[in-house]
Amino acid sequence: MVDIFKDELQVPSEEIVPNIDRNEFIKVIESRRSVRVYNDQKIPEKDVLHCLELALLAANSSNLQAWAFYWVKSDEKKKKLIQYCLNQPAARTAQELIVCVAKPMAWKENRKKMLELINSKNNAPEAVINYYKKIVPLAYDQGFLGIKGFFKKIAIFFLSLSRPIPREPVSFSDMKVWAQKTTALACQNLMLSFRAFGYDSCPMEGIDSARIKKLLNLSKSDQICMVISAGKRASNGVYGKRIRFKKENFIKKV
Amino acid sequence: MVDIFKDELQVPSEEIVPNIDRNEFIKVIESRRSVRVYNDQKIPEKDVLHCLELALLAANSSNLQAWAFYWVKSDEKKKKLIQYCLNQPAARTAQELIVCVAKPMAWKENRKKMLELINSKNNAPEAVINYYKKIVPLAYDQGFLGIKGFFKKIAIFFLSLSRPIPREPVSFSDMKVWAQKTTALACQNLMLSFRAFGYDSCPMEGIDSARIKKLLNLSKSDQICMVISAGKRASNGVYGKRIRFKKENFIKKV
Repeated sequence: MVDIFKDELQVPSEEIVPNIDRNEFIKVIESRRSVRVYNDQKIPEKDVLHCLELALLAANSSNLQAWAFYWVKSDEKKKKLIQYCLNQPAARTAQELIVCVAKPMAWKENRKKMLELINSKNNAPEAVINYYKKIVPLAYDQGFLGIKGFFKKIAIFFLSLSRPIPREPVSFSDMKVWAQKTTALACQNLMLSFRAFGYDSCPMEGIDSARIKKLLNLSKSDQICMVISAGKRASNGVYGKRIRFKKENFIKKV
Repeated sequence: MVDIFKDELQVPSEEIVPNIDRNEFIKVIESRRSVRVYNDQKIPEKDVLHCLELALLAANSSNLQAWAFYWVKSDEKKKKLIQYCLNQPAARTAQELIVCVAKPMAWKENRKKMLELINSKNNAPEAVINYYKKIVPLAYDQGFLGIKGFFKKIAIFFLSLSRPIPREPVSFSDMKVWAQKTTALACQNLMLSFRAFGYDSCPMEGIDSARIKKLLNLSKSDQICMVISAGKRASNGVYGKRIRFKKENFIKKV
């Protein structure tokens, strides 16, 4: 059984793109800051949910959606989660806490779902079916103890001598990077969405990931990407002006 | 010598947040699709640059800005890069190609820059100075062959028995994840910015990262996060409706 997102979240036609006031968007990006102290104002549940839904519209690798977002509402779990975020004010004063999880092994289940969905349509191109049937397991299955990945790495080395070829993923370590990247794309969507809705956020990485995994009953292969807190910034919520080094350090025209 | 971003990219005051029309933002997120075929319309250079500058305003870990964006303009390099993206239409038909690079070792240089900057101010809190002076190297330095990371891992294990403690990074593999996450946050900013400015994008990961690193003279420790192509979508540019599995699979209220 495959369910796809409800219609209102789908683009009605691929060809029609809306006119957008870019200045409203720029305001979102520019006013997003990591907020360390929140005030008492609550976020309506429907806004949190909408922001989470917008997070799921981020770009993601092979559309395998290797992510999950745990919206921690239970008082008991929240109390523990704050401790596992080392009791930092960005967690302690937050109205909402969301644990963003990267799932390196989700490709298995979601590949099947994609295939079921594709096969239920009459007009699916052969290349797409082939991609999920053959290429996805070839790329993402690293085998028991990474043995398949090891042999792939050797095969890739020899193939690469004569032509360009994708080099990763060939290990579980690569799979972690793969899922973490996809999840981080959604995390930025989430933080921007909160800002667009009038709220603030803080991404936290200095956290006890092992305890959080246990708290949420996550599987061994699941990885904590970050914990995102949200609320409305207090007057002392932002620690100083934004600092970025000169852009020439980071934008290289070659 | 520390340079910070030019004034217009800084928030004038931490306290004032602008009113934002959230619907304009939602249009950006909803209309962003991975575009596989672009038309012939060029993107003005100033728009590309502005989008790249907005990418650099993404959240990032400890403000260590462990990223770089190579905007490939030279015809010769572009031709090669297209081959290294396996000649896929999203690269071949693109107006612009940007290689997004995660830099796990950038913490060393950027930590120094942060310290110089902080010390040049009179009002820097002791905790911030201490963070960049002591905590950052403790957290990010894994030592020669990861030896420091190994001993940290053991120390963390024993300390974790009595209290919550950050578990990562304790290896170069963890440092890759660390920098890749930060870079992916900026990548999502970049793709959304292109959309807000009326253009489209495609993130590519099925690429020959080893050849791209050589092409751009990157150091061994640098990691290719993804290549992002940009342009205006052709009428056949989006391959079908967006597919997302049911949101309950990904948003868990606990």
